Amino acid sequence: MTTATNPRALDHPTREEIRLEGVLHALSDPVRLRIVCHMAHEATELACSYFDLPVTKSTTTHHFRVLRESGVIQQIYRGTAKMNALRREDLDALFPGLLDSVLEAAGAQASRQGRPAEDA
Amino acid sequence: MTTATNPRALDHPTREEIRLEGVLHALSDPVRLRIVCHMAHEATELACSYFDLPVTKSTTTHHFRVLRESGVIQQIYRGTAKMNALRREDLDALFPGLLDSVLEAAGAQASRQGRPAEDA
Repeated sequence: MTTATNPRALDHPTREEIRLEGVLHALSDPVRLRIVCHMAHEATELACSYFDLPVTKSTTTHHFRVLRESGVIQQIYRGTAKMNALRREDLDALFPGLLDSVLEAAGAQASRQGRPAEDA
Repeated sequence: MTTATNPRALDHPTREEIRLEGVLHALSDPVRLRIVCHMAHEATELACSYFDLPVTKSTTTHHFRVLRESGVIQQIYRGTAKMNALRREDLDALFPGLLDSVLEAAGAQASRQGRPAEDA
C-alpha cells in the first residue's frame, strides 16, 4: 500500500500489488459488478452519488472501498466529491482481456434476463 | 438445482442457473483457482485426491463444493472416487472467453512470481 500522508489521499495498491484473486472477489458481488459496468460504460470519473444503488450509503461506501483496495478502481477527492475511475490501464496490463471478458459476461447475463448491461 | 434422488448423485446448477457472480466468487479463492488451473491443464476427470493442496481434507471438500454449486465443475461418483471436471462447455457458452482470460491471468500472475501456472 502507498502511505497516505494527506488524510484526504486514499490508499491504493500499486500495480504490482494487485492480485487476481482480489480483483475476482471485488467483481463477484452484484452491486460492485454493477458499479464497474457503469464505470466502463461512462468511461469518465464518476462521483459515488452518481450511482443509484439499492443499498445504504454506508454499504455503498464499503463496496467502493473493496473496489479501491483490490485495485479495480481509483478514488480521489476533488473538492468535496470523491471521484471514482476504473484502473483499466493497470488491469489490462496485468491481466490482458480479463476486465473486458467480465464486462461482456455481465452484459450477456443481463441480456438473458432482459436488463441493460449496467444493471448486471 | 436438479433433484438428487440418488444419494450419491450430487446437486449441480443447470446451465441456466449458473450466475456470473457465483463463478467469479468461486474463482476468487487462491486454492480454488489453483484447482481450476490444474483441471484446465489436465483436461480430464480428476479425483479430489489428485490435488496436493495446503489445506485440510474438510476444507478441500468445502472448496470442491463451492466450485460445484457455482457451476464451475461437475462432480460425479465413479465407484468410490468422486471425480471432478471443469464445466468448460457450459461456461464458454454462457460467458465466452471468461474462463480462458482467468486462466491466462492466473498464469501471468504465477509467472511474475516465478511459479508454475497450476500453482497460481
